[in-house]
Amino acid sequence: MKKQFKEIPGSIVAPTGFMASGVFCDIKKLGTGKGSNKGPKRDLALIVSETPATVAGMFTTNQVCAAPVKVCVERVKNLAQVVVVNSGNANACTGKQGMADAREMVSFTEKSLGLSAGRALVGSTGRIGVTMPMDNVRAGIIEAAMELGYTAAHADHATEAIMTSDSRPKQIAIEFLLGGKKVRIGGICKGAGMIQPGMSATGARPAALPHGGLHATMLGFITTDAAVEQKTLQAALNEAVAHSFNRITVDGDMSTNDTVLVLANGLAGNEKLKIKDSKLKTFQAALNFVCLELAKKIVRDGEGVHRVVTVRVNGAKTIQDADAAARAVANSSLVKTSWHGGDPNWGRIIDAIGYSAAKVVEEKIDIGYSAVMQPASAKSAMARQGKILWSLKRGQPTRATFKELCAAVAPNEFELHINLNLGQANAVMYAADLTEAYVDYNKGDVTDLTTLGG
Amino acid sequence: MKKQFKEIPGSIVAPTGFMASGVFCDIKKLGTGKGSNKGPKRDLALIVSETPATVAGMFTTNQVCAAPVKVCVERVKNLAQVVVVNSGNANACTGKQGMADAREMVSFTEKSLGLSAGRALVGSTGRIGVTMPMDNVRAGIIEAAMELGYTAAHADHATEAIMTSDSRPKQIAIEFLLGGKKVRIGGICKGAGMIQPGMSATGARPAALPHGGLHATMLGFITTDAAVEQKTLQAALNEAVAHSFNRITVDGDMSTNDTVLVLANGLAGNEKLKIKDSKLKTFQAALNFVCLELAKKIVRDGEGVHRVVTVRVNGAKTIQDADAAARAVANSSLVKTSWHGGDPNWGRIIDAIGYSAAKVVEEKIDIGYSAVMQPASAKSAMARQGKILWSLKRGQPTRATFKELCAAVAPNEFELHINLNLGQANAVMYAADLTEAYVDYNKGDVTDLTTLGG
Repeated sequence: MKKQFKEIPGSIVAPTGFMASGVFCDIKKLGTGKGSNKGPKRDLALIVSETPATVAGMFTTNQVCAAPVKVCVERVKNLAQVVVVNSGNANACTGKQGMADAREMVSFTEKSLGLSAGRALVGSTGRIGVTMPMDNVRAGIIEAAMELGYTAAHADHATEAIMTSDSRPKQIAIEFLLGGKKVRIGGICKGAGMIQPGMSATGARPAALPHGGLHATMLGFITTDAAVEQKTLQAALNEAVAHSFNRITVDGDMSTNDTVLVLANGLAGNEKLKIKDSKLKTFQAALNFVCLELAKKIVRDGEGVHRVVTVRVNGAKTIQDADAAARAVANSSLVKTSWHGGDPNWGRIIDAIGYSAAKVVEEKIDIGYSAVMQPASAKSAMARQGKILWSLKRGQPTRATFKELCAAVAPNEFELHINLNLGQANAVMYAADLTEAYVDYNKGDVTDLTTLGG
Repeated sequence: MKKQFKEIPGSIVAPTGFMASGVFCDIKKLGTGKGSNKGPKRDLALIVSETPATVAGMFTTNQVCAAPVKVCVERVKNLAQVVVVNSGNANACTGKQGMADAREMVSFTEKSLGLSAGRALVGSTGRIGVTMPMDNVRAGIIEAAMELGYTAAHADHATEAIMTSDSRPKQIAIEFLLGGKKVRIGGICKGAGMIQPGMSATGARPAALPHGGLHATMLGFITTDAAVEQKTLQAALNEAVAHSFNRITVDGDMSTNDTVLVLANGLAGNEKLKIKDSKLKTFQAALNFVCLELAKKIVRDGEGVHRVVTVRVNGAKTIQDADAAARAVANSSLVKTSWHGGDPNWGRIIDAIGYSAAKVVEEKIDIGYSAVMQPASAKSAMARQGKILWSLKRGQPTRATFKELCAAVAPNEFELHINLNLGQANAVMYAADLTEAYVDYNKGDVTDLTTLGG
């Protein structure tokens, strides 16, 4: 499949003027049992811009919201120069001490880097309900400040330091032209379980956000050397997250800590992008691409995940209906276990569509499968129709054989197409199967408190 | 724990004037693979009253609704004398042929028993999307009509004939006095997966029913020799189901076929119960008890279930909030896997409460555990408080040790108490853990079409 943008190495340090580092300061080990030495050890990262950057953010709409999220929501409209992120402790449900600790994390980071007050942002992921080991955090910040650098290895260290149950790092960088200037966007993210983010710009829950279906900590940090006005950057991030991080689900659980931040330092030298700017379209497409690629990496690396399924609902009466039907299917335990088994079980799918909040008519529902296709567009939607193997048309089984349907759901990634044939509204969800490995990982080890995350 | 009513043998044939039978007519085997010989073989049951009985019913609110459900919805206000039920085929998503087959099932049953037209009701559970093997069904009805009898063995056969993935039969009968007359209620049910029923009297979705969280086929058939006026019986069933079958979840999936029917033939000779009758309270309590005991049997026998957890949410602002919080916790994959692991993980619980549609304030939430207690009453609610081991009070961890909390969640059944401390509304859900065995069973065997159920 041809990618829409040219990928380059370097992830978050690919854009001009960004540095990163990742160190181990013993946050992951504290209080944990035998599992504590599994996985990557680094647990504190810094992402730094040489110059003050415009910031935009999207935050969990969970009403139980971690202290670092609250600090970011306060600060996101100001210029920033550094993001400090730790794994191993979510600093969630930690009360007043948690807020004091999150505030100290930003102020200590600012001082360590010689920055003005207010220039730091913070993210945390890991155990819920345990106060931060601040001595370790301070030592980690000092060390990470000394380790800062511009190489891909520095970005790798930062990426590792934000991982929890992730089995692999998730990074991307792209380069494109904006008004004749070479512009770069880089990004890293983490997340594997407690994944069905539903983020908004303020952490407040907009009426349009589907309450029922939101959920694991995902963190995403995006850097760009594009010059973008703050409101424009926030609008672009809203749009990009709406079509990426907010469209994924591993287990249907929305975290207390979900956060996506983008820092735009303007060092590419383009004319500052504003709302209604004709060049905004290119930047938006690039940001969409980065967010969607990162979001898909989270689903592919989901806890115990064997198969990734793109659930496309078309022909709904309203966007809310399309979203509700897609989320019901994407989060149904019976549908997800059938995907794991390679079972093209349309009975479970139509059952989930039927109990969703979407208005549906059984006799109008089509269900089919295809290989993974390019992102939706009017053109690709047309092309797609020809490549779908339909198992159900207008509520009735087609002549497709069970063997043909099994072959369609056998690949590690495939697309599920649902047409409600009631209207023009569409929605997509990037979903995962439910496996014994997911259950085994999450039933936990009561001697291993790393599984208490957040 | 002292039971509220005296249990007696005989289940559905315990009430005066009821007969039952269950036979094998090869519906379960048809079209299935190697798994077809697992489990109970009988697949067609008759439940018959000697005299025409008043009927009430509750039906799935799934918009994809099986043909037998549609037939029952049409007939439920009339008198009935027989229910014909098959397992192995849900007669769901079977179009016009499915409706014709469901209608033939009732008319053929009426003829076979020499009853007037309109006296039969029908239930089906099993594969979705395959038309009924009507030759087998007709043969089965004829055989079952010949086998009808009044003994506990006859009830056992009927109970077996409605089972699909159930590992054990689910039956109950009780006896109590109503205005000096000895009255009996009997009941059988089935269900193990695709279980989170959300039933209404018409199959239409009332605004108050939580859309997001409804779902496996459960069937329940209740017989009583009480004399009850139809509207009163329906109101009593609405109330009983609201506090039992509609409060359980195994996997959060609501079926296309969920049905509860009650037949009241009046042979106990009590004065016919009407709305506002003072004796209605006793009958309601008895029906509530029967429905709740049957509903709990479904959760305990849920696919792969190791632990059953009663989730009690108190102190919500509204009933809708209490229900939303209870369902979010009861259906969270992360909470359910932690129950499986014996992990008293309050972080995942408060996370689920936070993303639910319920209005909550983190700093007010209490979370605790107790042994299983008697059904809620003002008195028992008071008594309960003293017996709860709180892990979280006002959003902060208590001094309860991890060891104490582990002991609280170690039993096969326990209660989870959540107090939102925002109001007076309460809700309860009877929930199950999520185990590797559930995934293994439901990932299915693509050579075994019995797992396509419905």
